Amino acid sequence: MTASKATVGVDFGTESARAVLVDVETGRELAASVHRYVSGVIDQRLPGAGTVLPPDWALQDPDDYVEAMGATVRAVLAESRIDPSSVIGLGIDFTACTMLPVTADGTPLCRLPDLRPNPHSWVKLWKHHAAQPKADLINETAETRGEKWLDRYGRKTSSEWFFAKALQILDEAPDIYARADRLIEAADWVVWQLTGIETRNSCTAGYKALWSKRDGFPDRQFFASLDPGFADVVDEKMSRDISSPGERAGVITPAAADLTGLLPGTPVAVANVDAHVSVPAATVVGPGRLVAVMGTSTCHVALAEIDRVVPGFCGVVEDGVIPGLFGYEAGQAAVGDMFAWFAGLLSDAGSPSETLHQSLEQEAGKLTPGESGLVALDWWNGNRSVLVDAELTGLLMGATLATRPGEIYRAMLEATVFGTRVIIEALESAGVPVDEIVGCGGLPFQNHLLMQLTADITRRPVRVAASRQTPALGSAMFAAVAAGPDMGGHASIVEASAAMARLGEDEYLPSETAEPVYNDLYGIYRDLHDTFAGGSSEMRRLRSVQDRARHHSARAEVSA
Amino acid sequence: MTASKATVGVDFGTESARAVLVDVETGRELAASVHRYVSGVIDQRLPGAGTVLPPDWALQDPDDYVEAMGATVRAVLAESRIDPSSVIGLGIDFTACTMLPVTADGTPLCRLPDLRPNPHSWVKLWKHHAAQPKADLINETAETRGEKWLDRYGRKTSSEWFFAKALQILDEAPDIYARADRLIEAADWVVWQLTGIETRNSCTAGYKALWSKRDGFPDRQFFASLDPGFADVVDEKMSRDISSPGERAGVITPAAADLTGLLPGTPVAVANVDAHVSVPAATVVGPGRLVAVMGTSTCHVALAEIDRVVPGFCGVVEDGVIPGLFGYEAGQAAVGDMFAWFAGLLSDAGSPSETLHQSLEQEAGKLTPGESGLVALDWWNGNRSVLVDAELTGLLMGATLATRPGEIYRAMLEATVFGTRVIIEALESAGVPVDEIVGCGGLPFQNHLLMQLTADITRRPVRVAASRQTPALGSAMFAAVAAGPDMGGHASIVEASAAMARLGEDEYLPSETAEPVYNDLYGIYRDLHDTFAGGSSEMRRLRSVQDRARHHSARAEVSA
Repeated sequence: MTASKATVGVDFGTESARAVLVDVETGRELAASVHRYVSGVIDQRLPGAGTVLPPDWALQDPDDYVEAMGATVRAVLAESRIDPSSVIGLGIDFTACTMLPVTADGTPLCRLPDLRPNPHSWVKLWKHHAAQPKADLINETAETRGEKWLDRYGRKTSSEWFFAKALQILDEAPDIYARADRLIEAADWVVWQLTGIETRNSCTAGYKALWSKRDGFPDRQFFASLDPGFADVVDEKMSRDISSPGERAGVITPAAADLTGLLPGTPVAVANVDAHVSVPAATVVGPGRLVAVMGTSTCHVALAEIDRVVPGFCGVVEDGVIPGLFGYEAGQAAVGDMFAWFAGLLSDAGSPSETLHQSLEQEAGKLTPGESGLVALDWWNGNRSVLVDAELTGLLMGATLATRPGEIYRAMLEATVFGTRVIIEALESAGVPVDEIVGCGGLPFQNHLLMQLTADITRRPVRVAASRQTPALGSAMFAAVAAGPDMGGHASIVEASAAMARLGEDEYLPSETAEPVYNDLYGIYRDLHDTFAGGSSEMRRLRSVQDRARHHSARAEVSA
Repeated sequence: MTASKATVGVDFGTESARAVLVDVETGRELAASVHRYVSGVIDQRLPGAGTVLPPDWALQDPDDYVEAMGATVRAVLAESRIDPSSVIGLGIDFTACTMLPVTADGTPLCRLPDLRPNPHSWVKLWKHHAAQPKADLINETAETRGEKWLDRYGRKTSSEWFFAKALQILDEAPDIYARADRLIEAADWVVWQLTGIETRNSCTAGYKALWSKRDGFPDRQFFASLDPGFADVVDEKMSRDISSPGERAGVITPAAADLTGLLPGTPVAVANVDAHVSVPAATVVGPGRLVAVMGTSTCHVALAEIDRVVPGFCGVVEDGVIPGLFGYEAGQAAVGDMFAWFAGLLSDAGSPSETLHQSLEQEAGKLTPGESGLVALDWWNGNRSVLVDAELTGLLMGATLATRPGEIYRAMLEATVFGTRVIIEALESAGVPVDEIVGCGGLPFQNHLLMQLTADITRRPVRVAASRQTPALGSAMFAAVAAGPDMGGHASIVEASAAMARLGEDEYLPSETAEPVYNDLYGIYRDLHDTFAGGSSEMRRLRSVQDRARHHSARAEVSA
């Protein structure tokens, strides 16, 4: 038996990067390593210059990515003692849209001493929300012009996406915009650093930059309507050459070999997005199963051979997840975050212990469906799908003097699953089937009650991916595809998934006795959902009272 | 200057009785004493026999009242070192309806050895809720027969009231009913023990036993429709001779003098109800000012010269509070209880410290109106006025991941005041004016923010009674009226109030800047109020899901 081949996947998260070295034949994890970014999320002051950032800004330092890349890959090579010649590929995934302005040779503008003090020269992280006015302009302009592509994005684009961020640079820092030969996703930029070749992946292009395989980017007139100087953003600063996941971007350069310890010539896969790359790592490579990447928030991805408009979905992208299929993405803006909020409310210090979460889950688990008499709307951070409205807020109904913390906790778990059921029903109404749910991410391992409720409320069996690191594993799988069979890799992501991805043993089956109760509770949830989402609902009026009160407070502070 | 005269007021609460000895000229408190009932609230097992009580039962031992009467009056006499000849009167007030079956000579049936093991022979405390089926029958029968008196009670009578409790005895313990020569309020029974004379006060008769000065009790046919054996309940077991507050019931007998240390012949006032007797002690003896007795729940009383139907009010009784005026009573079922619930939720042990309440109030006080973006429906214990519906539940809207405990706490305070505003608007719509609010009870002294919010949200000035013991003070004032001017007392409760009752110095004035914001928030509250009170609202559907779930669980336990 010859020594089997391995690939490396590196998952670039918000605070750190994590690499895994994986056996290509079995998917077994041979080594893992995590490296925190030195500057982390830059949302208060620019490093060095000390410039104070306005509210809603969130930046990163691209050098942190390079450092983390080198440190984590060297660590997994060292830990596994593998011969680098057995490593046949490298793949990466990233948060998105996380983008930066660079020169023609790929140098980040924030490395140039004269531009470094300007915040617009740095990486804009996915959760940089200061481009909201630009997103509003993009949405209004697209509506007015009747842009067909709006349907693919639930008729609303996000401030987190590529063109809102690019337009903010043009508007607020035209000099930076002018000096930027390229505007690029950090994911693609890192691949460029490894291979010396600039590529653009279809996942971020499709989900974050309004690109589609059939229609390409929005047309020049659309961009010109946003700002005359923005008319040629695609041709001047981006590329129309888009690569699918699993394609080979290039190979490790001698410089990248020095950085990582990999051999020069090792294939590197086209970059990917963390949530989407998890899908084949959760064993899903075809229609019928919904992947739920569950953490502080949840991202849902389903696959289909057909191209349908699903109202309120974040995006439908051909080749966006698995080549040859349409990937349907939805999301819930607060899931684990909502549970943590409630636990934090109960904690003196505001930082809930693991014990508190466990005792809440234990209390909640003792209840029967409907027993608490509570129902909640899971909008503590707005609603991402299918209402696409960040202004919506949380609601709890049914409290009495006898209501206990475990009952509220359970109502919050249930509410997030009711939200998932709304998403599933939207998919099925559009003709995209969902017969089973596969969970991955952190939550499925921490909160078994949530997984059982997911089965009971959606009335579908629920499985959990075996790996706790599905993004990095998925990247390693695409690396094996980029390497290809000749080098000991795989011919396709379907083949790679069959060999390398597994489900855990737990299977959550829908309870028949819970079904009628949860149908009733879901009916109540759904009515509240539709009522309060309405244009002049009490919830919206309350939000405007709050906006006026805050505005008034802010003015009073200024005049004081 | 001659030594001034004094009177004693004794307030019989749920867990204890409290006596105050008060100077008749100034209202100054000369001494006070509290005595806890030995058996307290009997809701688990009968003392002695050990009989287990069903759910919702709440009994008391009448001997506890006698013992507390003697102990507290002796204590205030001793503490003040007053000559008993200077004590010119005694008055008492009680929880209501708190009633018991007795023999013709006033002996409680629970003192008779053969009847003592039967729970129906004991005192049924105000919060004995096991007569709900009887209240339902009374309400249905009254609706069917078109009883005119229903309007005086918000078209719904309570399981806490007299005839529901009496009918439960007849139905479940016909032998006890047969042996009961009299069915009587504990308040009137204690006066009977002191004076040897059976009287019936107009406050409990009017607010708890469907009596009115003009129409008397419901007619024989109504009672016969409830149960043929109940047809003559009034003539057989009660009395049609009803006395107004301030009338003299009789004088202290030699036996009562031995018990209390008062001189035989000391006048005793007709009994009263704790909330209602507080009204003149809060300086209110005429129209225009609303008294709010604020504690775990809140009781509102307004006075008027006119007899109006106020939809959803608990009761409108002529001579019920102040002779010659109509007393309008409304209530909020959870006020302090709601704040305590929330503080309890935040406390590990479930019993919140005073410090926690203070820190919540402090955080809440820093906020400006509308800033939290929260609004709540204050129905954690149902709604007593104006919806008269114990099945309604609490609701909180507007929560986000940034919502802090102090914001929720403030929203709960505001919600109870929105509830008060609904009550005030109902009164004013019916032509009963409310120009000012006077708070009394425990809460106004503990929660200054609540009082300021009461002014801001109701847009009326708010004052607080000077005495922290308004029920006992009010009883002492009525004792001075029962004594009369010849003995050094007062000619009327109006005169007694002018001499003996005072307001505290704090005055809470409505904020002009808060007014528009609270008008908007109240509009939102009111819309939610009307929506969820509706017959097929999501809240009601949720309650029936809960009822079915509980029923199912109970059955599952039985069959297990």
